[in-house]
Amino acid sequence: MAKRVKLDLSYDGTDYSGWQSQPSDDSVQQAVERALGQILSSEIRIFGSGRTDQGVHARQQVAHADLDTRMPGTELRRALNAILPDDIRIQRVTRAPAGFDARKAAREKEYRYLIWNDEIVPPFLRRYRTHVRDPLDTAAMQDAAGQLVGRHDFAAFTANPNRPVESTIRDLRALIIRKRGKEIAIIARGEGFLYRMVRSLAGLLIRVGEGAEPVLSVREILNSRVRTARVPTAPPEGLFLWVVRY
Amino acid sequence: MAKRVKLDLSYDGTDYSGWQSQPSDDSVQQAVERALGQILSSEIRIFGSGRTDQGVHARQQVAHADLDTRMPGTELRRALNAILPDDIRIQRVTRAPAGFDARKAAREKEYRYLIWNDEIVPPFLRRYRTHVRDPLDTAAMQDAAGQLVGRHDFAAFTANPNRPVESTIRDLRALIIRKRGKEIAIIARGEGFLYRMVRSLAGLLIRVGEGAEPVLSVREILNSRVRTARVPTAPPEGLFLWVVRY
Repeated sequence: MAKRVKLDLSYDGTDYSGWQSQPSDDSVQQAVERALGQILSSEIRIFGSGRTDQGVHARQQVAHADLDTRMPGTELRRALNAILPDDIRIQRVTRAPAGFDARKAAREKEYRYLIWNDEIVPPFLRRYRTHVRDPLDTAAMQDAAGQLVGRHDFAAFTANPNRPVESTIRDLRALIIRKRGKEIAIIARGEGFLYRMVRSLAGLLIRVGEGAEPVLSVREILNSRVRTARVPTAPPEGLFLWVVRY
Repeated sequence: MAKRVKLDLSYDGTDYSGWQSQPSDDSVQQAVERALGQILSSEIRIFGSGRTDQGVHARQQVAHADLDTRMPGTELRRALNAILPDDIRIQRVTRAPAGFDARKAAREKEYRYLIWNDEIVPPFLRRYRTHVRDPLDTAAMQDAAGQLVGRHDFAAFTANPNRPVESTIRDLRALIIRKRGKEIAIIARGEGFLYRMVRSLAGLLIRVGEGAEPVLSVREILNSRVRTARVPTAPPEGLFLWVVRY
């Protein structure tokens, strides 16, 4: 009898097409499914808490799967990490209640968008930070973030006309700007996010920080509910799915 | 009239054959020489403070060169960083006194050997930490380090019979073990180091930390002045040339 397990994993998204399975077979999901299939000698499907785009990282992604095995979680973790490439690491494998669904059961997700705000990015961080050379006005960015937090229609901050959703209303519970030395983090928390929403929020906040868009325009952009070039999609390398809370 | 300049640079050594020029043309030195040659339309040679091996990183490497240009340092830095791959970054270009020699003028070098001591290495650190799964006894490692510090014949801690040196005596001014969470740093400071000396010191210290070699044997190994399998060369990915002091 198969048991449901919860997988906690982290990955460097640089060399993957994203979380979700692709015809090109180079997604994180497929890599984990292949490794599980190899260990358990059967075809396994796993179901993530949500997608991450090409090049986006996960400090903590969560998935569930039904596995027909008596292997303890720690042993399965070790076997998976021995097979998986080292840019994907299984942090934990735990028994989950029957019916646990990594996507539906998620109470809150936290994303962090990390910017290196200096002339030069240290080579050791180049895959994990978005480079912004000119000094950003983080006070203006925080003011702008204050205009965006809360329950709104975020249609102006999503990017995929090919993926219609029932509603573009989301509750953005927190949007915090934190500066530590040359690093600026945009921390976003909510029950759920639209496609490319965090990178779109980051794109506008960076423009505000650069002085290209006044704080006063942010509400107008939000209320327009129309995506325009004033909201660019910030590049993927700075984005981390940070934690999924259940 | 050519002027002498000092270059401060950092690099991720993962994808290079090392600092020093190679027939295969894939060294850090050659990458910087090519970029300089392209900007100044002439053949440029640069001279580093010392070699780093294949896969070894530099937080700060220093080199000198004679350049026939009036370009200010900040402009040359920007031009170089625009051409160089992003795993090499020029941090500073400054005018140096005539006769300044990056190797001979170095007063002290500091290397750091970084170990991730846990079951799993976070994917974002995998290129920059040596993975040691079993818990290391850092108190024993520090005791062992205390046996090695000072002016000694380090013949038992070098590794290249094809590169004879006049003397294998070196003054190891500091050898410090520092543990912060899951990271263990071995910090080594001295005027100069033998070929593979830091990785050999790290190799023995890791064996001591694992309990494979008693602290009491360390002096005996040092005094033997013969390289044996008791002193393995620790892998390159954990090693950083940290700073060169003048």
